[in-house]
Amino acid sequence: MKIGYLGPKGTFSEEAVIKYTQGVENCEVVEFNTIPEVINCISNSLCEEAVIPIENSIEGSVNIAVDMLINDANGIMIKGEVIIPISHCLISDAPVEFKDVHCILSHQQAIAQCREYISKKFPNAEIKATDSTAQAVLGVKSKPGVVAIGPERAAVIYGMRIIDRDIQDVKENYTRFLVLSQKDGVVTGKDKTSIVFSVPNVPGSLYNALGVLANKKINMTKIESRPSRKKLGEYVFWVDIEGHREDEIVKSVLEELKGRTDFLKVLGSYPKFK
Amino acid sequence: MKIGYLGPKGTFSEEAVIKYTQGVENCEVVEFNTIPEVINCISNSLCEEAVIPIENSIEGSVNIAVDMLINDANGIMIKGEVIIPISHCLISDAPVEFKDVHCILSHQQAIAQCREYISKKFPNAEIKATDSTAQAVLGVKSKPGVVAIGPERAAVIYGMRIIDRDIQDVKENYTRFLVLSQKDGVVTGKDKTSIVFSVPNVPGSLYNALGVLANKKINMTKIESRPSRKKLGEYVFWVDIEGHREDEIVKSVLEELKGRTDFLKVLGSYPKFK
Repeated sequence: MKIGYLGPKGTFSEEAVIKYTQGVENCEVVEFNTIPEVINCISNSLCEEAVIPIENSIEGSVNIAVDMLINDANGIMIKGEVIIPISHCLISDAPVEFKDVHCILSHQQAIAQCREYISKKFPNAEIKATDSTAQAVLGVKSKPGVVAIGPERAAVIYGMRIIDRDIQDVKENYTRFLVLSQKDGVVTGKDKTSIVFSVPNVPGSLYNALGVLANKKINMTKIESRPSRKKLGEYVFWVDIEGHREDEIVKSVLEELKGRTDFLKVLGSYPKFK
Repeated sequence: MKIGYLGPKGTFSEEAVIKYTQGVENCEVVEFNTIPEVINCISNSLCEEAVIPIENSIEGSVNIAVDMLINDANGIMIKGEVIIPISHCLISDAPVEFKDVHCILSHQQAIAQCREYISKKFPNAEIKATDSTAQAVLGVKSKPGVVAIGPERAAVIYGMRIIDRDIQDVKENYTRFLVLSQKDGVVTGKDKTSIVFSVPNVPGSLYNALGVLANKKINMTKIESRPSRKKLGEYVFWVDIEGHREDEIVKSVLEELKGRTDFLKVLGSYPKFK
């Protein structure tokens, strides 16, 4: 089985893939350069599964991933989740003093997770966005004064130097990854279901929709709003609930929700990460 | 009166300030280099008012602004809002062909609003994040092959060339700005109130909180979740409702909400933008 992820080797995505495939045989991992390419590897059947970052405890959603799944028309489904601790390192090729750092490379999410650190230590450095953290680490090769923010593992793989550790703005930092496929997960008894919906633009409509969950005592483990991209102040909601879409109670909840929403899509059911 | 904004001249923030101060006399605008500096100009009394971008119809929230207001302990309040249409231009110093563009400069929000355009037209260009769109336009001076994404106004002010127009991923594009001060707005009869709150981690707690609004038929014009930054899957909610916090009905709603939330902060009441 082929599994796509945001490469090159050494990204946090690779750590998530390693965790996800522990004990699974016959896995071949396939690197892609950008998050959209990873997601598209399912629609264009390059891979059977793909692992993408979706949400971080400091910075929140990976907007591009959330928006692509909301708007996907190719039947991509979520079949799993993986959560890993995230520790960012400051990485360079040769030894460098902080005062000589003039440029910082990293993925936009990593930069945002280290925003306070960067503005305190390097208020005048140029910030360059890379497609992944490992790409950033590769980018410091033979560049004096240029540093990357990324995983320790990437520094080790590419033979770079770690100048500082645990530099994210909140020490306890986790990222949640989703496993995508053309089918979601089978019922395990300890499942979650991700849905997205929009509600009519009238007072109480979101309350009315959430009431379906509350009345059936369905636990909501996530709710997030994204712009509809059509009109300022119009939102699409991403909600994760406990239970599998094949469970009788979840089935009836989804049926009832249809009547209280303008648009409803089930992104998939999958086992809760332990 | 001094009003702080994200400079230099030519940013969309400057357009918002110009719109906000139309017909107001004795205004002195003060440029700051970063969004945190603009917000801090209220806490450290450098300005009486400040205008900051908060939400865009394509990309959603300006996370740094939302997070700073949620966590602010200096009593910053919202006293107004301004909404302006946003049209992004591709800007260079000298004429340049698309195939020769190797680097794109802009603010992270503008880059995200033009994500599809960039990946289609310039899949291999380097992306550099700047503190503002006008800073990006200034940065292309005498740099062949380097382009900026920013407002037409910035190109005009700094004598740069517009290579392409309306390049954002959705043509209809609006950004909402907030006016900050040490006091919020007086009652006008057509007001909004912004609040942030968190709810206990039990099933139905968000539903329960929103019920206070629904029962009193209070219209919610925005709801957004941000990570608590403490634990993955724990959120703080930003909600805008119609009405002024001095209105009897809003007063009673806020009182009741206190009992159903772990944390509740009123960010201010202010006239709805017309």
